[in-house]
Amino acid sequence: MKETNKIGKYQFVVEPFHADFTGRLTIGVLGNHLLNCAGFHANERGFGMGTLNEANYTWVLSRLAIELNDMPRQYEDFTIWTWVENVYRLFTDRNFALLNKAGEKIGYARSVWAMINMETRKPADLMTMHNGSITEYVCDEPCPIDKPSRIKVTSTDPVSTMQAKYSDIDINQHVNSVRYIEHILDLFPLEMYETRHIRRFEIAYINESRYGDKLTLYKDDLADGEYDVEMRKEDGEVVCRSKIVSY
Amino acid sequence: MKETNKIGKYQFVVEPFHADFTGRLTIGVLGNHLLNCAGFHANERGFGMGTLNEANYTWVLSRLAIELNDMPRQYEDFTIWTWVENVYRLFTDRNFALLNKAGEKIGYARSVWAMINMETRKPADLMTMHNGSITEYVCDEPCPIDKPSRIKVTSTDPVSTMQAKYSDIDINQHVNSVRYIEHILDLFPLEMYETRHIRRFEIAYINESRYGDKLTLYKDDLADGEYDVEMRKEDGEVVCRSKIVSY
Repeated sequence: MKETNKIGKYQFVVEPFHADFTGRLTIGVLGNHLLNCAGFHANERGFGMGTLNEANYTWVLSRLAIELNDMPRQYEDFTIWTWVENVYRLFTDRNFALLNKAGEKIGYARSVWAMINMETRKPADLMTMHNGSITEYVCDEPCPIDKPSRIKVTSTDPVSTMQAKYSDIDINQHVNSVRYIEHILDLFPLEMYETRHIRRFEIAYINESRYGDKLTLYKDDLADGEYDVEMRKEDGEVVCRSKIVSY
Repeated sequence: MKETNKIGKYQFVVEPFHADFTGRLTIGVLGNHLLNCAGFHANERGFGMGTLNEANYTWVLSRLAIELNDMPRQYEDFTIWTWVENVYRLFTDRNFALLNKAGEKIGYARSVWAMINMETRKPADLMTMHNGSITEYVCDEPCPIDKPSRIKVTSTDPVSTMQAKYSDIDINQHVNSVRYIEHILDLFPLEMYETRHIRRFEIAYINESRYGDKLTLYKDDLADGEYDVEMRKEDGEVVCRSKIVSY
């Protein structure tokens, strides 16, 4: 297969309500676009949600790590590339590049996905799904950023508490993956975004949360603009962990 | 001018993170698309933000009323039409139609806009801007829904309090118009959305709010699934009012 068909390329524009107060695309909206591109790419190649749902399987996002040198500005065009880097038995690594309006790469992202059976909630063997056809799309396009790390939060002092509301909930009755990113970024004061840029944003999705869940956020300040964040339910179950590195 | 050039028509698809737990497009995301379409339509005809900003003028949304018979579902295509109904000295009425994937009209919206000078914050005379060229686009396409109403909230018991955060703030350092819609819809429990549909959603933008503002919501229950909502700052200044009619 030609390498060119292995990479999905999708163009967007920064809509006004998707830019933050500095005029740059928000990381939450970028996350939304990345996940959409994952869906477009997989659907176009026959292993997307549409095909899978019919067979009672669905993709589950486990980790996402984004690293940025710059962000497109309001009304600017930008492009996202996505491709599959590795396929293991129970996980696949999908990477992304973010290109500015001049076609220069200004960021990258790595993501880790599993496929589960929607009835049993058990993971599927990716090597046997569709006769392992996903492996035909593995591509060696470079993605020069670190893999998602192990995040460990030690703080026991809550920095914020929220309750999952209507706007947070997706069709699976869970808080949607993009909302977690927004709630985590909302922990930081506007002054942080005025004086610093987020160079790296990581999130690990551990357990689902649902409508009405009271979610508490804990934050470790690791100095030099690096923070680890954990979101927990009232019973202490961890929902997600995140690392933010600013400069 | 041909009537066809007076109406802007824009196609979208319901992205997975833009659908609510029932699988329908959320009213907040629909609002985002409507406002984007207003921008596309105006820019393409020479009276949009881009042209205006150079001349130190900007459009300000004053009211929005949306009426829906149905909503597109996740992954479905839909189309938004927009056109100018009236131009007065200080306001213009812009209308919208929402069409499902079959091209059937399933909803309409009305909006009221003013133009202000960004330095003086004073309203501009629309009849003299660009020699009143906006009036050339006035169009008699039908929009069979009521005009935005006068909303009056009497309750003095807060139903919810929030503080404006990073994700709420736009490039003008104000809470963005779409976030207000989301915060208002988040007042209602999931059961309301399970058992009823929102037939009409209205919002009147009264005063801007900024990062860190503590915003309190008040709600009048008018019976038969109709609610009036008001958002106020700590000093009592009204930020916005909204009417929700469900069935």
